[in-house]
Parts: sequence; structure tokens; C-alpha cells
Amino acid sequence: LQDPFAGIMKGVVLGICPEARIVDLAHEVPAYEIPDAAFLLHQSWPYFPKGTIHVVVVDPGVGSARRPILVEAAGHRFIGPDNGVFSMLAAPKVRHITAERYFRHPISRTFHGRDIFAPAAAHLAAGITPAKLGPLIHDHIRLTFHEPVRTGRRVWTGAVLHIDRFGNLITNLAAAEFPADAELSVGLETVHRRAATYAEIPYGELFLIAGSSGYLEVSANQTSAAKLLGVGTGAPVELRLL
Amino acid sequence: LQDPFAGIMKGVVLGICPEARIVDLAHEVPAYEIPDAAFLLHQSWPYFPKGTIHVVVVDPGVGSARRPILVEAAGHRFIGPDNGVFSMLAAPKVRHITAERYFRHPISRTFHGRDIFAPAAAHLAAGITPAKLGPLIHDHIRLTFHEPVRTGRRVWTGAVLHIDRFGNLITNLAAAEFPADAELSVGLETVHRRAATYAEIPYGELFLIAGSSGYLEVSANQTSAAKLLGVGTGAPVELRLL
Amino acid sequence: LQDPFAGIMKGVVLGICPEARIVDLAHEVPAYEIPDAAFLLHQSWPYFPKGTIHVVVVDPGVGSARRPILVEAAGHRFIGPDNGVFSMLAAPKVRHITAERYFRHPISRTFHGRDIFAPAAAHLAAGITPAKLGPLIHDHIRLTFHEPVRTGRRVWTGAVLHIDRFGNLITNLAAAEFPADAELSVGLETVHRRAATYAEIPYGELFLIAGSSGYLEVSANQTSAAKLLGVGTGAPVELRLL
Repeated sequence: LQDPFAGIMKGVVLGICPEARIVDLAHEVPAYEIPDAAFLLHQSWPYFPKGTIHVVVVDPGVGSARRPILVEAAGHRFIGPDNGVFSMLAAPKVRHITAERYFRHPISRTFHGRDIFAPAAAHLAAGITPAKLGPLIHDHIRLTFHEPVRTGRRVWTGAVLHIDRFGNLITNLAAAEFPADAELSVGLETVHRRAATYAEIPYGELFLIAGSSGYLEVSANQTSAAKLLGVGTGAPVELRLL
Repeated sequence: LQDPFAGIMKGVVLGICPEARIVDLAHEVPAYEIPDAAFLLHQSWPYFPKGTIHVVVVDPGVGSARRPILVEAAGHRFIGPDNGVFSMLAAPKVRHITAERYFRHPISRTFHGRDIFAPAAAHLAAGITPAKLGPLIHDHIRLTFHEPVRTGRRVWTGAVLHIDRFGNLITNLAAAEFPADAELSVGLETVHRRAATYAEIPYGELFLIAGSSGYLEVSANQTSAAKLLGVGTGAPVELRLL
Repeated sequence: LQDPFAGIMKGVVLGICPEARIVDLAHEVPAYEIPDAAFLLHQSWPYFPKGTIHVVVVDPGVGSARRPILVEAAGHRFIGPDNGVFSMLAAPKVRHITAERYFRHPISRTFHGRDIFAPAAAHLAAGITPAKLGPLIHDHIRLTFHEPVRTGRRVWTGAVLHIDRFGNLITNLAAAEFPADAELSVGLETVHRRAATYAEIPYGELFLIAGSSGYLEVSANQTSAAKLLGVGTGAPVELRLL
């Protein structure tokens, strides 16, 4: 946002495919946080129309041996670095992007977003077939994400996946799988209350809620649960069914 | 900006109405500040073309009994929560948005921006009539905004409506109504000087100016008046004609 | 981003030229930093298609005698204040924008972005010729930028032009002109290592790299070089060939 990197990529796209429609997803992913970027993408792409090309430039390995890849999954296309950022996509068909005739030259060693990802996405949007960008591969990087672990008859241990700007803690516990009465411990607190909406809870009180991304969230009405609890991404949580 | 919420809403809109043109207005409204959002909208919508659909998601009551509404005023359309955010619109025609066939399903209890407001706006943009979204209502919420009060023969008491990123204090005193010589007290200071442009004032000096939104502003050339004065939104001001 | 100024300008543009494609470049230029804005523009415009109209509103002199100008250079058009922000453009053809029939009225004294620059850009995009906006001038303001100075047989003194969000220091030393072995002093440190990619360097170590904008940068892998060094924009650097 203070740098013109995203704007420059859009300039490159529009030079190749003037009718492309471009939507910004997020620009404040902590610069080296691949798991956070993977979750953010997971939470977002299903709401876009089929055929959308999603470009990810969370790329600390830029210019090294890490490959640029194209992933096809569920009728969507994804372009970015082979660093695990697409690990949450099911049944992906992955190509190594090698067709340099679709790159911008000279290719910088530090900004493949501009010189490889944006032009490859724009050529795809303009109508070339995915196969033109490079060969299929099967050894792309998959990160393992924290999955909740059952640690007792009625106890699961999970983790905080993400903290949003309102300070809500998004856990990796699928809301639909834990619908019953439960309490959740996080940081030094245990949260007993479950709410259907933010507004039914008094100001500042902690509660559990089924978040819009489908996971249990720890929230505090009109204030930041993350600040109240003093915890961050990756913090462990324990859910006990009552 | 660090979360993908706005991008997700755009994905939903483009899935329904691919030719929609989408403009971001502001994403840093303090999360629960309905009056600030109302003022921001008031300051912005007249500069958009007639027929524009303005979507507002400053919505602490999401998922509760508060209604989603469509407001028609001055040839523009406005969609958002019935929480007062549209209170500054004159002669509004208000509908309760009830037509669930235009919603996204399942409807989250925490993100109506994605599941109700964005799809309703996209269907409107794609051509359905407002009446299709729901019935007219007359009991929508209207907030009362601070209006300046005359507290002496030549004295008015007002308030700071908003502080912009440059640190200018935007008051609720209409610039056109106080054109004469005046001094204004705010915080511990009294501002004596009135300027037509920022540049005519020495660095760091406080002055009054007719701001671009039509209200008197307290500014300091090339620095933040809000920081110099140590005041925030809602602070009282007193204007004395000389 | 917390204010609606950029969104309002887009509303004005789309009211005049509904088919305009609008790309945001950056909104966090320090408010009064004309040299930083000039560098940001210099780094960005070549990646946009020919015919692009670039609008700059870093404008502390708004409303004063400073002129609104249109600059044509290299097949691109640039609109903004005559305050030096376009100084890095080669062979510019400059016009004083005087044709008030293309402005928005009334013209605010504090927001020419909305009332002069955006409408002028939109009318250009809609097809009027540059000459319609005003006469050619030759006395526009040119800032002198720090150029590296040769201060010894194998020694150059330069400066930090910009610090990006990752904390990389972008110097004014063109990477192509200093390809040989070299060390660079900045702050209290001397950086000995030159890398081709970020990833080949251990975590936290300082190194030199040819940045994507064509200048030598001082970086630290996965952390902020600016924070490690405690230096800011304008800091002197000294390069010694070995």
C-alpha cells in the first residue's frame, strides 16, 4: 500500500489483457507468512466466479530455485510461487511455468510478481491454454497445516489460524463439527459462552461463534479478543465438550 | 486491508454482475463507529454518478434483529444495515431487504456484507427493480447528529465530526454560514487565523479553512492539527464572530 | 485509506468517462514528500500501457499559486501539481491546465485532486486532445535529485532514495553501473556481500542486491534492513569498488 508493487502488476496485466477485471484480495499479509497467505486464499477463492485467476505474491524465495507454478482446481486457476501457499487446494493440477515467451524481460531476480506471475496470468486471461505455460508436475510443495487433534474423549486441541482486523481469533476447529455445548481454553482464559451473533453479547465479553469462514472463532463484542487475551496466530486452543 | 473481506464481496458481485464497476471508498472506518461512517458517506456519495449503488458494511449488529435495508435518495441507491449509517441522506425511500432468493446461501450470521448486501447490490446493478428486494418501511433508524448550537449573540458551539489522515479536524460548522471574521476554540487553544489555502500559512501554525467537504476545518500547515491539539472526534469547539 | 479522497476522485472520473479503467498506485506516500512521490512514479509508470494517464495528488501547495499541469512523455500522460513531482520524466512536454470548463465547480481550494486533476484526466481519457486543457509552458519546476558523486578513484557517495515496506533500502546507485565486487557503507555498517536473490542469504544477514527498480538495494533476508541499520530515506551511502 505504501509501495507501488501491486499497482505495477496491474499495469503489466492491463498492457497484455486490457479487458481484465482485477480485484485486490489483501496486501497486508505478513511478508514471510506462507501459512497465513494459504489460509487467506482458502477463505476467499470460493466466492469468486469460476474461471477466476488468483495471483499470490507471498514469495520470500523469489529468484531462487523455487518454481513459479500454475494450479488448476475446482474450475479456478492459481498462479504464484511453489512454496506451499496453495497447499489447502484439493485435487490440484499443477504446472511448472516455464514458457519464457510469456514473461516480461529482463526478468528481475526480486520481483517475479511483475515479471512472471502477472504476465502469465494476463496471457491466461487473454485466452492461452494452461498447457502453453509449462508442463505438469507432481512434486510441488505441500505444507501440513495444524489439524485439530483429539486428546481426550471429549477434548480436542487445535490452534489459532488467523487473527482478523477486528481481533477475532479464527481457530482451525470446523464450526459444523463442534455444534454442541463446549468450552474453549486459549491463553489464560476459558470461554464458556457460544453466540450466534456479535450483538447478543455484552460489550467486551469473550464468546465463541461460528465465523463466516466456517471455523469457530473467539470474539469479544465491539473490542479485540486478541488484545484481551494477548495471544497471536499459532496459539494453541483446547476445546472441551460439556 | 489485511483481511480479504472487501475482496470477497467483490468476487460475489462479479459472479452475479460481471460488468459491474466497483470503487473502494474507505476501509479504515473504526469498526464500530456508525456516526463516522455516516459522515464519510455524506461527504462522498454526491461525487459519484447517478445510479451508483453504495454499499456500507459498518455493521456491529450483524446477524441480530437489525434489518438489511435499501435506501433510494437523490437518484442514488444505498445498501447496508439499518443502524443509522444512512441518517444524513435527505428524503430517503427505504426498503427492508427481505427477498432471500437474491441472497447467498447459507447466510452467515457474521458477514452479511458477503451474503446479503453484496448480492443484493449486484442484482440491482444487473437490473432488477428495487421493489423486488423488499417492501417499503418508514421506521428505519435515524441518528441525530451534533448540530451547532447558538450559545450567545455571536457564539456557536459545535463539534469535531471527523479527523482525516492529514490530521485536519473537520467540524460540523458549515463554512458558508460563518464567512466573517471569527475565532475558534478547540482543546486548549484558540485559532485566530483563517486561510484560503494551506500554503499561505507558515509551517506548523494552526488556522481555519473552508474544507473540501464544505465544513470549517482546523488545520496546521504540513503537520497534524489533531496531534498539536491533542483532540479527537467528538471534541467540542466554540466559534466566536469578531 | 481511512479517508474517502481516492474513492471520491474515482467517482468523479467515472461520472465523466464511465469506461475508464482505474488502477491505484500508492496511497501512503508521506503527505508532504514530493521527492518520494517522484521516485515512486519513476519506478512505476514504465510498466503501464502507452496512453495511460497517471494522476498524482501529493500536493502540499494546493490552492496556492502553484499550477496544475499536464505532462506528456514517452507516450504517457501525467496530471498533477507543478511542484517537482514529475522531475524524473525525460523530455517532458508540459502544459498549464487552465481550461476551467473541464473542471468541477465550485473549485475547492484544498482538493484539486477532485475538482481539477480527476476531471481533467477523465476528459483526456474520454478523448479530448491535450491542447484543449491549456498552453505549453517551459518554466515548470524541476527538482534536483541526489546523483551519486565520485569521491575517490574507486569510491562513490550516494544516498538512500526510498525504503520499501519490507525494509529494503533502495539507493540511487544504478545496479548496472556497479556490477563488480564492491562494499557499501551505510549507517554504522559496511555491507560486503552481494547476492542475486534474497533466499541465498542466511536469515537476518545484510547484503547488496540489484533491486527490481534497477538500483542497488541493501536488504536483509526475511527482516528489515532499515530497522537493523537504523537509517531512513536520504541517508548517505558510500560504495567502494574492491
